[in-house]
Amino acid sequence: MKRREDDTVRAVSWTEGRLRLLDQRRLPDAIETLDCHAMTDAAQAIRDLVVRGAPAIGITAAYGVVLAARARYAQSPSNWKAGFLQDLDSLGATRPTAINLAWAIRRMSRLAMSIEGDPERVLLAEAFRIHEEDIEANYRMGDLGAALISGGAVMTHCNAGALATGGYGTALGVVRRAWRSGRLGEVYAGETRPWLQGSRLTAWELVQEGIPVTLVCEGAAASLLRQGDVGWVVVGADRVAANGDVANKIGTYALAVHARRHGVRFMVVAPTSTVDMDCPTGDRIPVELRGEDEVLRLAGRPLAPAGAKAWNPVFDITPAELIDVLVTECGVVQRPDDQKLANLMSHWKASYPTGEPLNGPATRPDRG
Amino acid sequence: MKRREDDTVRAVSWTEGRLRLLDQRRLPDAIETLDCHAMTDAAQAIRDLVVRGAPAIGITAAYGVVLAARARYAQSPSNWKAGFLQDLDSLGATRPTAINLAWAIRRMSRLAMSIEGDPERVLLAEAFRIHEEDIEANYRMGDLGAALISGGAVMTHCNAGALATGGYGTALGVVRRAWRSGRLGEVYAGETRPWLQGSRLTAWELVQEGIPVTLVCEGAAASLLRQGDVGWVVVGADRVAANGDVANKIGTYALAVHARRHGVRFMVVAPTSTVDMDCPTGDRIPVELRGEDEVLRLAGRPLAPAGAKAWNPVFDITPAELIDVLVTECGVVQRPDDQKLANLMSHWKASYPTGEPLNGPATRPDRG
Repeated sequence: MKRREDDTVRAVSWTEGRLRLLDQRRLPDAIETLDCHAMTDAAQAIRDLVVRGAPAIGITAAYGVVLAARARYAQSPSNWKAGFLQDLDSLGATRPTAINLAWAIRRMSRLAMSIEGDPERVLLAEAFRIHEEDIEANYRMGDLGAALISGGAVMTHCNAGALATGGYGTALGVVRRAWRSGRLGEVYAGETRPWLQGSRLTAWELVQEGIPVTLVCEGAAASLLRQGDVGWVVVGADRVAANGDVANKIGTYALAVHARRHGVRFMVVAPTSTVDMDCPTGDRIPVELRGEDEVLRLAGRPLAPAGAKAWNPVFDITPAELIDVLVTECGVVQRPDDQKLANLMSHWKASYPTGEPLNGPATRPDRG
Repeated sequence: MKRREDDTVRAVSWTEGRLRLLDQRRLPDAIETLDCHAMTDAAQAIRDLVVRGAPAIGITAAYGVVLAARARYAQSPSNWKAGFLQDLDSLGATRPTAINLAWAIRRMSRLAMSIEGDPERVLLAEAFRIHEEDIEANYRMGDLGAALISGGAVMTHCNAGALATGGYGTALGVVRRAWRSGRLGEVYAGETRPWLQGSRLTAWELVQEGIPVTLVCEGAAASLLRQGDVGWVVVGADRVAANGDVANKIGTYALAVHARRHGVRFMVVAPTSTVDMDCPTGDRIPVELRGEDEVLRLAGRPLAPAGAKAWNPVFDITPAELIDVLVTECGVVQRPDDQKLANLMSHWKASYPTGEPLNGPATRPDRG
């Protein structure tokens, strides 16, 4: 794949006929990879947060589809598709909020249904395309988003970086680009309890590139935004509803509220694969509740006494009215709403009529 | 001391001629105490968070004054006061935000200045009085605050319980009372990063009493308040300015913003010893910044990669306009402001003219 000068680590890759994932549960303590030989390995890895971040989950799923097709075709070359579709259902059920998972599986499965003979080569080429398109989209969004930043500090939340995507990152792509072009004074990142994606992943990405990063606990974010140094909050998304409401990591909604209260602008950076035009509003987005132990324990060590419970929703919904800018690879939408999103998505489809009839084109125009 | 049927653990006590503190750094893993034989031990314990919570810090300081007087008098019975006053300065400099520290030291030092001969007995009696008055104030606030709650869930933040006070608690006193009188459906507590007072201390207090508690990460609080089950957010305070602005644990301001946004009422529970009439507004309250390692490490284990920094303010300021009710031991103030607080405090002083000329009486009326 083409790489830019400020290119980054890859969380997901296809190596020697298998899917290789950087194990994000172990970062920053250890850099370990986990190889997935079967679709079920990929599904388990998504469920267990070996890989996370909406675009990275979608790409992982695309490679998982290749693994499923390979196994089913080997089992029964003449009748592999029924079992394969069942596999895709179970792959799609691993996590509910990020729409990129369903998007990638649907795109792969539509192509698969048209294949006669051994599906692996064709499907793998499509998975590569999904992966490359995501990186290209991130480069493009990095440029578009960074152009909006002019000095001052930026705050981000969770990890919407290389680790959450095919590479480079959505929100962190904007941060990278803004930093490289001298448009950025300072980066603050929310530590992002309970999984500490900010401390463990975002800080790790930025430190590696020499971009200074200051972590803040979620409870301190309102005080930070009140101080006036931060010009933009820049975050990714797990799903964008048709009206512009955004599902993203728990804590995002609070940031949007405080940003508006204190005159800080709020930018969501997400590829069109994250836009779900079938979901009219944010309250229709399923929010994943994960296990209590993510809150009650850390690295096996109890943080709270036995008997205490925890409520652990891992996403929240930010209403469109709190979003100043939605940056996608096909353009910037100021104050997103139903109409603007419909225009964006139909323009996108109209420009590339041969493309994928869902949320994005099957092939990027610059790749033919 | 008198104890009520729902009385609690004591964080601070005077035992065999020394100050004994429950070591809150070790909870809930271990129940250990630390004995302070000298003022410097007490100062170190306050600095290191062996004891925390504004009223508990004030009470600890009062006993610390006794230790200082004892040592200085033993050194030089004829000329102990100069060194003693220096000791008090260093004791007062241990933590900047909670006004109870300065309040208790001033009350003790004014009395000390009038003493001729061995000061220990008189000062110890005064420290006991400060301690007892605090517990009595908590009982009273528990009754006043609980009367405002009628069903539904309550959310609290940090620990404003027995551990943060002389006993029983401010915000948790209200929660205890409301629970006992059947006025409370459920208790949510913010885990309270970085020191996890919610998970470690508040949950520990509530679990011990059989009050069900559900922890939430600070990032999830806005989603919780949006859901509509929580009727009240109930918190303590480290300092209340003359206009009603409140300094409290970092994350409190965010809760107040979300509570107002979602129609949840916001109650601050604090004794008059926490009211600082010399501080006109919240922006004059010094907010303590603590070390980065509280955010970057947990129990010695790094959470973030080397090279990442952290910003760690441990209090924030909630403007009076976001506070629905301030509960003190001498009455409930709805929508606090300059005038209402002045009335409250002058009425309090006028009722007990023989009392302490600062923020509260030297003796409780019901104790003669």
